[in-house]
Amino acid sequence: MTAQSAAPHRVAIVGGGFGGLYATRELSRSAGVEVTLVDRRNFHLFQPLLYQVATGALAPGEIAQPLRSIFRKRLNVTVLLGEAEAIDVGARRIVLSDGGPIDYDTLIVATGAQFSYFGHDDWARFAPGLKSIDDATDIRRRILIAFEAAEREADPERRAEWMTFVVVGGGPTGVELAGALGEIANDTLKRDFRAINPGDARILLVEAMDRVLPTYPEDRSASARRQLERLGVTVRTTTPVVAIDDRSVEVKVGETVERIPARTVLWAAGVRVSGFAHAVAEATGAPTDKACRLIVGPDLAVPGHPEILVIGDAAVEPWKEGRPVPGVAQGAIQGGRYAGKTILRRLRGEPTPPFMYRDLGDVAVIGRLAGVTNIPWLGRFGRTGGFIAWLLWLGIHISYLIGFANRIVVTVRWAWSFFTHGRSSRLITGQPLLPPIEEPEPPA
Amino acid sequence: MTAQSAAPHRVAIVGGGFGGLYATRELSRSAGVEVTLVDRRNFHLFQPLLYQVATGALAPGEIAQPLRSIFRKRLNVTVLLGEAEAIDVGARRIVLSDGGPIDYDTLIVATGAQFSYFGHDDWARFAPGLKSIDDATDIRRRILIAFEAAEREADPERRAEWMTFVVVGGGPTGVELAGALGEIANDTLKRDFRAINPGDARILLVEAMDRVLPTYPEDRSASARRQLERLGVTVRTTTPVVAIDDRSVEVKVGETVERIPARTVLWAAGVRVSGFAHAVAEATGAPTDKACRLIVGPDLAVPGHPEILVIGDAAVEPWKEGRPVPGVAQGAIQGGRYAGKTILRRLRGEPTPPFMYRDLGDVAVIGRLAGVTNIPWLGRFGRTGGFIAWLLWLGIHISYLIGFANRIVVTVRWAWSFFTHGRSSRLITGQPLLPPIEEPEPPA
Repeated sequence: MTAQSAAPHRVAIVGGGFGGLYATRELSRSAGVEVTLVDRRNFHLFQPLLYQVATGALAPGEIAQPLRSIFRKRLNVTVLLGEAEAIDVGARRIVLSDGGPIDYDTLIVATGAQFSYFGHDDWARFAPGLKSIDDATDIRRRILIAFEAAEREADPERRAEWMTFVVVGGGPTGVELAGALGEIANDTLKRDFRAINPGDARILLVEAMDRVLPTYPEDRSASARRQLERLGVTVRTTTPVVAIDDRSVEVKVGETVERIPARTVLWAAGVRVSGFAHAVAEATGAPTDKACRLIVGPDLAVPGHPEILVIGDAAVEPWKEGRPVPGVAQGAIQGGRYAGKTILRRLRGEPTPPFMYRDLGDVAVIGRLAGVTNIPWLGRFGRTGGFIAWLLWLGIHISYLIGFANRIVVTVRWAWSFFTHGRSSRLITGQPLLPPIEEPEPPA
Repeated sequence: MTAQSAAPHRVAIVGGGFGGLYATRELSRSAGVEVTLVDRRNFHLFQPLLYQVATGALAPGEIAQPLRSIFRKRLNVTVLLGEAEAIDVGARRIVLSDGGPIDYDTLIVATGAQFSYFGHDDWARFAPGLKSIDDATDIRRRILIAFEAAEREADPERRAEWMTFVVVGGGPTGVELAGALGEIANDTLKRDFRAINPGDARILLVEAMDRVLPTYPEDRSASARRQLERLGVTVRTTTPVVAIDDRSVEVKVGETVERIPARTVLWAAGVRVSGFAHAVAEATGAPTDKACRLIVGPDLAVPGHPEILVIGDAAVEPWKEGRPVPGVAQGAIQGGRYAGKTILRRLRGEPTPPFMYRDLGDVAVIGRLAGVTNIPWLGRFGRTGGFIAWLLWLGIHISYLIGFANRIVVTVRWAWSFFTHGRSSRLITGQPLLPPIEEPEPPA
């Protein structure tokens, strides 16, 4: 009886989004591995539905699930609330912002991405992006406050400023936000006010490229545009933003600059990785693209560091013909599963095949009963629009939601909203009274 | 055809809690009245369930309903988001904090109450009270952060500080909070942590008087105490608090002062009216009690000002044998209905009977499957405890919830929690990482 079991292989996973979640799941079934999952938040967030929180259709808790409760029965998984800040590549150790060190044998970086203001970080306070629950409740507050302020504003010009909403960025988030705004103005709030008609709201979707949904086929972009216009959204492509302040957006039209007075500007453009991924890139000398994403090898490892895997939006992962994996939930989910499997294969001494992304396609919803899909493996049947797209979207999102109670509750909410044309989560929390961008922040 | 309809009677209602809501409902059915309902928040809050948000059982949106959507079909009701600040009694006009004036023929003051720190307002930042949605999410964050911090703390003494929770005040809110904390520690989080056992948490309920639920009959207080102790809560009566700081509570035991190290202190004691009710008292010279509540006549009007009615927690309303109406939802609901009816009766030239409060009884829930009731009109059957009380509480609260979708969703959530022992709304929002009371606020 001299056989002795080896010490378990320690895996540190930074980030509890789709990538980190699915990597942890994959590893949590193996006794030979000990996983430490670190996140700044105590919950996994179902980001594809975040815009529904921002527009009052769902409540924050309905699209989030505590990481601890997801993994409570997996005793080889430790969940830590903390922010990874630094890495010592030689010692194989990461350091949290409060000093706590975590030693690893393999590290999975799954820190995701934030929106980038293209060097204009001062725009952030006028035009919040939509990445976290707090962003979503902040944006919800701004949208609802704008209608409240318009209701109380007698001056027609200032009222029009409150009634103008600009969404910057024509990717899926921007399209879904603009569609939801169109629905709010024309349907949800229709009868709620006395002095204003919410249907008079001007909603603009501004995109620097020549079409919305630029990663979709061209005919899907055209379909999305038509459906947005049907909801009263003005779509302006080839229109880059050059300035934002608390009362307006300036865009470039050809050679001239046009000022659009608007009190509510929402940002859904650009991508930038977060701090810890930067630290990893610096410490390993890994190549990055211009959004600072780490360029990884076919096994998702940092070149020269097989013990550091990068997945999801923090990485540029090779796919077929050198095209990178798109920055969508499926990319992170498949990357997470692959990373987990790779670690287990290595421990068993098996060869590891390269990462193969399977493009399951994209679905975007546009307001009520409408949307577009682009599902390549369904051939021409994968290119739908309107009601069919909306139904597909519904089914996919409910089936991927974590937590069975959330699935029931979200289904009840959606069914309810559908029949009543209502949105049930229209609370203004935080400071309710002052328009949030009226007062400049104190100088730092 | 010389008959001419009189100008509508303008009613301003300040506060959209139970009192304001039911007064508005009563008046919204009469064409001869124009109602302006002013609230600092855009929603009606179902306050009796607020502690469930603070303890992660329900999400904020599930116990709140936008005032606009409640009254969207009542075209004689205008809802304004604003804070009433001043009153000109002679001109019959109130002024909002942003300057907007509202003229009234009858004013209903329904501004409710806040917790009072008995002159120690500096305690508020160490021991938050539970009155608003933002309070509830703040308290939820503090409770969850405490367990997270304990999980990461190696020093046993500091860990014990994080694992100690003190609830100040043994009224219904304090009892329900302490019961929910007991359930969280012993049931909900049981298997979620690796370094700590949440069941080791110390939960203290501290009350200055000689029993909990002092407005209930004595045997109900004793029953509540037993049920709390069964959940692991230490109940300390005749124990007034004399000091609170960021790491401890000091209580007076006989002649000595005892220091209880604790990182999480929740406040559920004392009552104080809000600013606008003060302004009304000053402007009218109305008598007030020591909590600054306005003492009103049998028709709920301020003495000498029949056009100003005060309802709910902002008022001391006479009841039988001079006893005041208790500060519970039913008091505000019945006061609101009475105030609405009184205005309509006056317009019709009918006599107005005095306000008669009907005591429907009290129900408090204590953790899972337990509670106490005191329902006088059911005779001795109205004095229940344990499971029966819990079932009664469930039925009453679901039936009073505003909004049918909320009723379904809350029922689903409760059923789900019941069978899974889970709490679905355990999100730490706001600043997730720093213990909130570590840093003193900058001097004002």
